[in-house]
Amino acid sequence: MPTVRNLGIEDVVAQLHDLRNEALRSRQRDGRPPRLPSRVALTEIVTGVTAALYPNRLGRPDLTDEGIDHFVGHQLDVALRSLQEQLARELVFASDLAAPAACAADAADAVSITREFAAALPRVRQLLDTDILAAYQGDPAARSIDEVLVCYPGITAITHYRLANVLYRLGVPLTARMIAEVAHSMTGIDIHPGAQIGERFFIDHGTGVVIGETAVIGRNVRLYQTVTLGAKRFPANDDGSLVKGDARHPIVEDDVVIYAGATVLGRVTIGRGSTIGGNVWLTRSVPPGSNVSQAQALTDAVIGPAG
Amino acid sequence: MPTVRNLGIEDVVAQLHDLRNEALRSRQRDGRPPRLPSRVALTEIVTGVTAALYPNRLGRPDLTDEGIDHFVGHQLDVALRSLQEQLARELVFASDLAAPAACAADAADAVSITREFAAALPRVRQLLDTDILAAYQGDPAARSIDEVLVCYPGITAITHYRLANVLYRLGVPLTARMIAEVAHSMTGIDIHPGAQIGERFFIDHGTGVVIGETAVIGRNVRLYQTVTLGAKRFPANDDGSLVKGDARHPIVEDDVVIYAGATVLGRVTIGRGSTIGGNVWLTRSVPPGSNVSQAQALTDAVIGPAG
Amino acid sequence: MPTVRNLGIEDVVAQLHDLRNEALRSRQRDGRPPRLPSRVALTEIVTGVTAALYPNRLGRPDLTDEGIDHFVGHQLDVALRSLQEQLARELVFASDLAAPAACAADAADAVSITREFAAALPRVRQLLDTDILAAYQGDPAARSIDEVLVCYPGITAITHYRLANVLYRLGVPLTARMIAEVAHSMTGIDIHPGAQIGERFFIDHGTGVVIGETAVIGRNVRLYQTVTLGAKRFPANDDGSLVKGDARHPIVEDDVVIYAGATVLGRVTIGRGSTIGGNVWLTRSVPPGSNVSQAQALTDAVIGPAG
Amino acid sequence: MPTVRNLGIEDVVAQLHDLRNEALRSRQRDGRPPRLPSRVALTEIVTGVTAALYPNRLGRPDLTDEGIDHFVGHQLDVALRSLQEQLARELVFASDLAAPAACAADAADAVSITREFAAALPRVRQLLDTDILAAYQGDPAARSIDEVLVCYPGITAITHYRLANVLYRLGVPLTARMIAEVAHSMTGIDIHPGAQIGERFFIDHGTGVVIGETAVIGRNVRLYQTVTLGAKRFPANDDGSLVKGDARHPIVEDDVVIYAGATVLGRVTIGRGSTIGGNVWLTRSVPPGSNVSQAQALTDAVIGPAG
Amino acid sequence: MPTVRNLGIEDVVAQLHDLRNEALRSRQRDGRPPRLPSRVALTEIVTGVTAALYPNRLGRPDLTDEGIDHFVGHQLDVALRSLQEQLARELVFASDLAAPAACAADAADAVSITREFAAALPRVRQLLDTDILAAYQGDPAARSIDEVLVCYPGITAITHYRLANVLYRLGVPLTARMIAEVAHSMTGIDIHPGAQIGERFFIDHGTGVVIGETAVIGRNVRLYQTVTLGAKRFPANDDGSLVKGDARHPIVEDDVVIYAGATVLGRVTIGRGSTIGGNVWLTRSVPPGSNVSQAQALTDAVIGPAG
Amino acid sequence: MPTVRNLGIEDVVAQLHDLRNEALRSRQRDGRPPRLPSRVALTEIVTGVTAALYPNRLGRPDLTDEGIDHFVGHQLDVALRSLQEQLARELVFASDLAAPAACAADAADAVSITREFAAALPRVRQLLDTDILAAYQGDPAARSIDEVLVCYPGITAITHYRLANVLYRLGVPLTARMIAEVAHSMTGIDIHPGAQIGERFFIDHGTGVVIGETAVIGRNVRLYQTVTLGAKRFPANDDGSLVKGDARHPIVEDDVVIYAGATVLGRVTIGRGSTIGGNVWLTRSVPPGSNVSQAQALTDAVIGPAG
Repeated sequence: MPTVRNLGIEDVVAQLHDLRNEALRSRQRDGRPPRLPSRVALTEIVTGVTAALYPNRLGRPDLTDEGIDHFVGHQLDVALRSLQEQLARELVFASDLAAPAACAADAADAVSITREFAAALPRVRQLLDTDILAAYQGDPAARSIDEVLVCYPGITAITHYRLANVLYRLGVPLTARMIAEVAHSMTGIDIHPGAQIGERFFIDHGTGVVIGETAVIGRNVRLYQTVTLGAKRFPANDDGSLVKGDARHPIVEDDVVIYAGATVLGRVTIGRGSTIGGNVWLTRSVPPGSNVSQAQALTDAVIGPAG
Repeated sequence: MPTVRNLGIEDVVAQLHDLRNEALRSRQRDGRPPRLPSRVALTEIVTGVTAALYPNRLGRPDLTDEGIDHFVGHQLDVALRSLQEQLARELVFASDLAAPAACAADAADAVSITREFAAALPRVRQLLDTDILAAYQGDPAARSIDEVLVCYPGITAITHYRLANVLYRLGVPLTARMIAEVAHSMTGIDIHPGAQIGERFFIDHGTGVVIGETAVIGRNVRLYQTVTLGAKRFPANDDGSLVKGDARHPIVEDDVVIYAGATVLGRVTIGRGSTIGGNVWLTRSVPPGSNVSQAQALTDAVIGPAG
Repeated sequence: MPTVRNLGIEDVVAQLHDLRNEALRSRQRDGRPPRLPSRVALTEIVTGVTAALYPNRLGRPDLTDEGIDHFVGHQLDVALRSLQEQLARELVFASDLAAPAACAADAADAVSITREFAAALPRVRQLLDTDILAAYQGDPAARSIDEVLVCYPGITAITHYRLANVLYRLGVPLTARMIAEVAHSMTGIDIHPGAQIGERFFIDHGTGVVIGETAVIGRNVRLYQTVTLGAKRFPANDDGSLVKGDARHPIVEDDVVIYAGATVLGRVTIGRGSTIGGNVWLTRSVPPGSNVSQAQALTDAVIGPAG
Repeated sequence: MPTVRNLGIEDVVAQLHDLRNEALRSRQRDGRPPRLPSRVALTEIVTGVTAALYPNRLGRPDLTDEGIDHFVGHQLDVALRSLQEQLARELVFASDLAAPAACAADAADAVSITREFAAALPRVRQLLDTDILAAYQGDPAARSIDEVLVCYPGITAITHYRLANVLYRLGVPLTARMIAEVAHSMTGIDIHPGAQIGERFFIDHGTGVVIGETAVIGRNVRLYQTVTLGAKRFPANDDGSLVKGDARHPIVEDDVVIYAGATVLGRVTIGRGSTIGGNVWLTRSVPPGSNVSQAQALTDAVIGPAG
Repeated sequence: MPTVRNLGIEDVVAQLHDLRNEALRSRQRDGRPPRLPSRVALTEIVTGVTAALYPNRLGRPDLTDEGIDHFVGHQLDVALRSLQEQLARELVFASDLAAPAACAADAADAVSITREFAAALPRVRQLLDTDILAAYQGDPAARSIDEVLVCYPGITAITHYRLANVLYRLGVPLTARMIAEVAHSMTGIDIHPGAQIGERFFIDHGTGVVIGETAVIGRNVRLYQTVTLGAKRFPANDDGSLVKGDARHPIVEDDVVIYAGATVLGRVTIGRGSTIGGNVWLTRSVPPGSNVSQAQALTDAVIGPAG
Repeated sequence: MPTVRNLGIEDVVAQLHDLRNEALRSRQRDGRPPRLPSRVALTEIVTGVTAALYPNRLGRPDLTDEGIDHFVGHQLDVALRSLQEQLARELVFASDLAAPAACAADAADAVSITREFAAALPRVRQLLDTDILAAYQGDPAARSIDEVLVCYPGITAITHYRLANVLYRLGVPLTARMIAEVAHSMTGIDIHPGAQIGERFFIDHGTGVVIGETAVIGRNVRLYQTVTLGAKRFPANDDGSLVKGDARHPIVEDDVVIYAGATVLGRVTIGRGSTIGGNVWLTRSVPPGSNVSQAQALTDAVIGPAG
């Protein structure tokens, strides 16, 4: 008797139907909400763009001089057209958030943001070249620049960050964030696309690194695994909602090294050329050339958010 | 001469053959051991179930009112039939462990567990709605509920946990564990499916979080990256084997916040509304409303397992 | 008018073209650089080899006695032929690094390294059997040896390490490193293939574990998540370049347990049977049977690299 | 020197560029022409619709009573949404043909045609049931109705025809034709979607069968391989262009059998219950109950088109 | 308003539901009918078996002496296990046809048929070698034996036939027929698996060839495109149903050539060494050494089935 | 007992091993024979080249003016590099045929043939434009030029022919033949790549058409389904082997129409502007302007090969 094997799906479908409708009602929605950018599409877009940036290493290994520019042009064409579509989704979604169902976002915006993103790519390539060189020079295990490019998770994370940061600055923070999360999932390195990071940036090993939205990092900075550059606390508005966008993460000046497990919280400044020891907990600024060990740092330990 | 290129595969095959037979003999097995659930299948099952829970966001973005229930019903049908098969494998495997070759597990059990799992899904959706809301309200970087759902690794981990926990409580711990490991690999967040976790649970960043099998977490709790809720030590039986199933992980009461890198070990209780600072090492209970900083905690530091 | 939708791709292509040529010139290259091993290919090779090592569990679950050796032989044949090709790429690349465009690497070397790798596989299987047994015996949550094999990220990481270590010792460090990074991305566990690790090695949870290139680990050692076995500092040569290959990571003797978050740096020795507590920061040797807690360790805290 | 391996692609690209522009100019086009329906999409649509028509045989073999309607509903939802999009393409394309660049086709038309197509599906299922039964009863080699459905190319061709014919009658002849060509490629049977064919239609073997646009076929008709029901000649308008849409193919009344290789041309009528022998060439009407052999037919042989 | 876009799917689902139930009732069925063999699975099985028969040409082109037997063994293992499953389906289906719901087919039968099929493969290879040689020797366009194997549709069709014929003789006619239809779709050549065909069989071009179930073909026979070896008529039993299994197709003796478009119908014999001209229509036996042209044949033309 | 389920694979592997070795011995071979071009690769090459020829219709439908040349260039680059590799295989194979194991084919030949093939592509596009126009003008069912391109099997066959013919003339007949067979399998139209065919060539329906290696077809010729342009007989050399390369197929002058089922055999000439009726059997030349019906033709019927 077939009934015996019934799993009660009909009931579950009906209950989920009611839950969905209730959720829409509670958000005063009539129609379906607009689409979000697709993570799968963004993953392919980053793959295409990085293939265009480093065609021999991250694209097709058998490219010839004759074919390489066509390859680059075609990768960009496909990736940028797709990006433009994803950006249009975010713009519609954002304008719908502001005024539901009065979706006025202009598709032309998606085109112009995409164009500016494209124009930024040569500069991204230059920055990444400095990052790769820094990794090669800073790791005794690295034997060649090429192997750093194909093999270091820190480079994967920084590449995604540099692309996401361009988008963040162009006003599409959700797309930027989703690209950052792709890298986070692959590498365990979580760099918010809003952070500002100078050239020659190197993260070794990297698992557990967290860099917050308003962090500012100078040039030639090196981090190890499980370093947090976080916020100390989240101030709330009078109505209890969190203040958004405030500068709440550290400033790390040029030539700083931060060892594994160190936690730096709040809008403090790590002065140029400082070294922060492993597992150090730091919530105050330190002058240029400081050498902070765990014992010293402990005296400053306070309770604070590490988000 | 082809011989030159020989890789000696024949020998390796023979040696591996002997090693396999020896391994089977040492476990007193005659026939092949029963099959285990497949990780690939479980990954697809979770994808299908979450698509049914949030069809517009995690299923097909172009669903219409007309098609949505058919989509949900079909996703559930395919995912649950497959789950039923995987559960049958676990039941046969478990009964074979108890009494090799006397495999008496009833396929009917797999059906009834699947049915109960299905019946729990609406409640899982309700819990996840509270988790998503908590993430949205707790993170200054979150701009909308939808983006939390598609983009936050903490939500990915909690979704897998809530599904795995239902299965764990229904008596299929291996399947539950394998689902948890899928999330672990994607997010770096390792929540044992045996843990009990209340609504409005939020993990920010998350890489390196470990929550043990017997942990109990109240409602409205927030964790940051690299937090461990672990066991202090593993008591052994008289014969030296480990005692299994003992309550050995912390109890975290409602409205607690635990900052990045904090470690809480053993069956201690973090009282309601407490705040545990970053990198704190804690092996004793603290009363409600406590504010524990790293310096204070250190006085209690003892050597103990963090598993 | 189509021009309106132009994204300026032509310009980007031209600029990237110039940047590439400049990069080649700055490295005094005329032709294309040699190909690197492919990460996708190496991932498939590891999948094939592990399927050959554990055909029932990691290969095809429906294998019969009649078919199993053909399966193993065929998996090895496909995986080893592909490995041989990848190794040839590394050898050409390495010889080109030494003397650009005078690429003298012998394809015969790739064959003989592959043959030695094949010959080492039965021993790898034996070692992995001890690792799996250690995990089963050391985790109260483990119910069977089989589930440890298919479900524990620590086992995934150690499997990749043991294969990569064989290749490292055979003189193909880049391929070895790329295999290690595949595991790192899947598990958050970063074991350098140059490390030496004895049998019965167990890593629980594992996210954030880092084990350096010259670390030496005895038998029956257990680590938890976020443990670092790192270098204290990187000595430089007179010309400022880093000294490579020096013994700079810890020696961990037999039967040691190191709990979550502990950091051990430099060429120190953890004596046999010692226990290192969670979050401990250790930069000196400790005698056999030591029991190091966070408080004790802190007195030794110094600033040092954790790479 | 890389130039040696140059293939001259740059020149070919430039020449093809000029040829494309010339072609557009010669058709007085400024912008890109509108998109056509996609053959790949149409192939998937037919697969989805036939899975909905025969879910156990052409859909998923493991469907249960509980899941089957959700399966059918979901298949239809996906297939019909996709069809709607393809039909919109055809409507835009057709309106652009009439008035280039003044593309006024209404997307609402695509919806309403799709809705009518959906409404016709139960009738299509009924007709196909009669066709399958006729094949089963008419072929001594057929052992069951199910095997006719999954195995006979004639059934594949008729299924595509019956779906394409609905679309043809709803005013989307290009989509209909493309679906017919999918079947043509799979089976060698070329039935124009404009033909009218009654129930219980059976084509045995089928390779080389051609049935023209204005053919009318009664009920219970049987054809063998390489039968042509074609046009005799194509009358031209005064300006030399072909007259389109004229009734120019045969009428075949009920209960007729036409053996392999027979050719019937022009608007002739094969009377009810007639038998046309193999290889017969026929360009005149025959009364009901006729028995036409090759010898007889030859006396009527005329030169005429078989298109 | 979403309703506007409704396609009426709900109604169609309900109507198709009723039609399915009606169909089951009319066949006096309660439960779901048993599964049929899968065409996709059979296609893969043939691919695997032919790869085992010609590993260098139809398997992997890069096989070495060391790996080739493992390749062959593994291909056979995978293909034969899958075949065994498909055969079990046919046996259950056939026994259900005989006595619905009293499904008594023995899985052991599937094993033993598969074993006999395996044992026949070396003989199939020998026969195919003769067919390939005949094609090479009989076609002025053929330059090598290898190109005949990879490129001639006649060889594809004969390979499928020879495999299907073994299965037909072992009592699984449905599986055999489905394999034949795979070849029919690829090549336009329709050889019933029940036909008996000697060695050195060659079909040139082949589109439109039909060879019936009880045809008997000697050695060294050559056919061209659109040749039919069919039945003249289908005698019926007293109850009007067709007599099944009767010898009703031609006998073609050794060394016969039949040119394009010729049709031979009924249990006639083409004597050894005869030549049948193009487009000839033949329904009577001819003695050895005959030379039949279209004009002669016409005098014998009768109306008859070509099925 | 596992033995029960044994399929005897071991024996089959051994027998096939012996058969293979015997076959190699009988051809006096020591090592493995060289690789042949891959049908899968050639199929992708044709897809890529046709996408480059008609980028909007057979490539990506969403191409913009900005991206189209990069698309074309990239398609050509990928397709031509792959073609070059396949051609190298044919050249090695052919030189090995001539002198086994003394494989002297120059890779440079593959490059130069590929370059000439590339240079011929603009001319191929021009010819195909005339073919498409002829189909549009000659078929009352055709509504637009675009639909002819995407939907007519005759166009598919002619496109493959025109590409294959370029390769045939460049000295790589095996690759050419394999491309022709891809079209044959898709359309049932078998055009030998050696045939010479003028512009404005149209085949309607097409299943069963065969055009031989030395056929010569003028401009503006139209064929219908099942037309054969074949050889009358194959003259043998003194040693009994077939004479290869002789002109043995018909010459069809400009503006000829040949209706369905007609067979023309031998080196005869169909004079300009002639019409050959359906099913006509013709083995003699006819003057310009002839109108040949079946009755007339029969008087000339002779027995002859249609290959």
